[in-house]
Amino acid sequence: MVERQDPSSPATTLIDRIGSELSAFLTERASLLTDISADLAILAEAAGNAVLSGGKRLRPTFAYWGWRCVQPADAPGEVELIRAAASLELLHACALVHDDVMDSSETRRGKPAAHVRFGRMHRAQGWPGSSQSFGEAGAILLGDLLLSWSEEMFTAAVGYLPADRAQAASRQFDLMRTEVVAGQFLDMLAQTRGAFDPDEALQVIEFKTSKYTVQRPLLLGAGAAGGSPEVAGVLSAYGLRIGEAFQLRDDLLGVFGDPSQTGKPAGDDLREGKRTLLVALAFRGADRTERALLESGIGNPALTEAAVAELRDVLHRTGACEQIEARIAQRAAEAADSLAGAPLCPAAAQALSELAEAAAHRTF
Amino acid sequence: MVERQDPSSPATTLIDRIGSELSAFLTERASLLTDISADLAILAEAAGNAVLSGGKRLRPTFAYWGWRCVQPADAPGEVELIRAAASLELLHACALVHDDVMDSSETRRGKPAAHVRFGRMHRAQGWPGSSQSFGEAGAILLGDLLLSWSEEMFTAAVGYLPADRAQAASRQFDLMRTEVVAGQFLDMLAQTRGAFDPDEALQVIEFKTSKYTVQRPLLLGAGAAGGSPEVAGVLSAYGLRIGEAFQLRDDLLGVFGDPSQTGKPAGDDLREGKRTLLVALAFRGADRTERALLESGIGNPALTEAAVAELRDVLHRTGACEQIEARIAQRAAEAADSLAGAPLCPAAAQALSELAEAAAHRTF
Repeated sequence: MVERQDPSSPATTLIDRIGSELSAFLTERASLLTDISADLAILAEAAGNAVLSGGKRLRPTFAYWGWRCVQPADAPGEVELIRAAASLELLHACALVHDDVMDSSETRRGKPAAHVRFGRMHRAQGWPGSSQSFGEAGAILLGDLLLSWSEEMFTAAVGYLPADRAQAASRQFDLMRTEVVAGQFLDMLAQTRGAFDPDEALQVIEFKTSKYTVQRPLLLGAGAAGGSPEVAGVLSAYGLRIGEAFQLRDDLLGVFGDPSQTGKPAGDDLREGKRTLLVALAFRGADRTERALLESGIGNPALTEAAVAELRDVLHRTGACEQIEARIAQRAAEAADSLAGAPLCPAAAQALSELAEAAAHRTF
Repeated sequence: MVERQDPSSPATTLIDRIGSELSAFLTERASLLTDISADLAILAEAAGNAVLSGGKRLRPTFAYWGWRCVQPADAPGEVELIRAAASLELLHACALVHDDVMDSSETRRGKPAAHVRFGRMHRAQGWPGSSQSFGEAGAILLGDLLLSWSEEMFTAAVGYLPADRAQAASRQFDLMRTEVVAGQFLDMLAQTRGAFDPDEALQVIEFKTSKYTVQRPLLLGAGAAGGSPEVAGVLSAYGLRIGEAFQLRDDLLGVFGDPSQTGKPAGDDLREGKRTLLVALAFRGADRTERALLESGIGNPALTEAAVAELRDVLHRTGACEQIEARIAQRAAEAADSLAGAPLCPAAAQALSELAEAAAHRTF
């Protein structure tokens, strides 16, 4: 769905083009590091692992289609826009690397998290001191580097666009960076306070996912393309709706999904005590017995498979699953509505409509 | 020494002007956060604590005098240059906040470190879970926010300068951000591997201090001012020399300094096992008994006052202190040499010469 044809190589997909931009940038930065000291090859390699090992490239993809809402295929500036869009993956890699330190998550996309890799290197070398501390410190520094590099790659790329369009894109980039930290901080507060409040859950979704993953990237692309306020309005509404549907589907998969597809053990979201809308609605609809099960189970790291199955049953019985499914369908329909009749390039409208379907069913 | 006269308020010093720019920026950003959620007032307050509670503003000061090497006082763009220079304090605050997490340092400038403040808030609120984890996660997010904000403040400010000058300044800003992470990573490796190697210590000084604190800020200011390659060459040489003198003095103070002035307990650098040139030279000059004392003492967190005194004695006896003092004097003299006859505005040449003295004796 997200393919587009590169004249020089018909088989080159958007994902490939994003990957090539990232590889080229990281190769050049690796030289900068190893020119400082050969010892920094470790850090360069860690950057490559964090950025180039998969991922769905959702943010660059939305940025690209935001651009294509306004500009035809292969318009001047498209190469630079894809480069700017790719830089969002460096920002995202920073968020993930730091997030895994904060949550002490061992794996990311089925592979060892950055701090785990640094820790293992420390152990393998037989260095003195705590491998865990070394791993975490390495990952904090790696994230800082990725965050700075993201901005450098972005700014250099949009520098090729007319100044007003570059500025419109930068404004969205800046808001993204603040909002994702804000969303993570609010998530952490919600998690810590132990509240299961539907409104709080929705606010975290808005900032951690809807804006950061969908709305801002779309507006960034449209802004870079010189899109009108009307286009921005359409993409803004579409983005918030699709972002919510996407996160709600993710929350369902975190509890009911197939581990071979989600890349994490089934029920881990329940063990971690994630404050999802799904769980908040289950609390709201629970009778006394169900509430007791939720209270003792959610956030219990030692939860057995049988207890996970019982909690899944509670999520169904309280009507929470059904409400979430209905909400996903509603948001997907509203997103389709926002596109209907909007002044977008037809190919982009079609792609966004397919992306909406994919987000609602998580078939990326 | 670093004062300059603001026409509207004769008593306004450079430090005050930098502080005002930071306050204004952070006030505006605090609104952005609290518009998202009132709960984010915590994060805004933490940013204020990290940035506005003291510090010598060394990097902005060097950036300002780099500019003044080329431009007379109150030249067009000076206000914006000071704003761009002030943004370096946000970058530095990120480095310190993250560094304190990595080193588990409890205090910063005599006050609780950011992660300690967040942890205490967690305890005071009686929230469940680990106060330490909450504190560290909060500080990681705070640092990320400060790093992004630093760039936003910088870019907006240099946007008022002619494009080629803005670009010259940005190039230094970008290198600063990569080099400080590189320096910290190399420091961490040196610390972990346990080597006491003079060359390794000098490389860490070059990237963690000489370039990051002095050379790059000077070049940033001179670039923003449209300085010639000749001026850049002078400032580059001066910066590396003065940066080294400054760090070597800092290392001496970390062992021999008055805790009431350094803000940290005497001998803490020895307990932490910091891989300084001072200690590396002591190892090189030690006889068997002295080496045994160094090996058992350096990096031993339980070091008594008496043992600290004994190690101080070893640092003297091995000639390490004397060599460091000689090296500081040599670097200060070389820095003065680099200024002699250079095509710099006289007021700036005078200020840099005084800053060289202050760096060598740490009398900022």
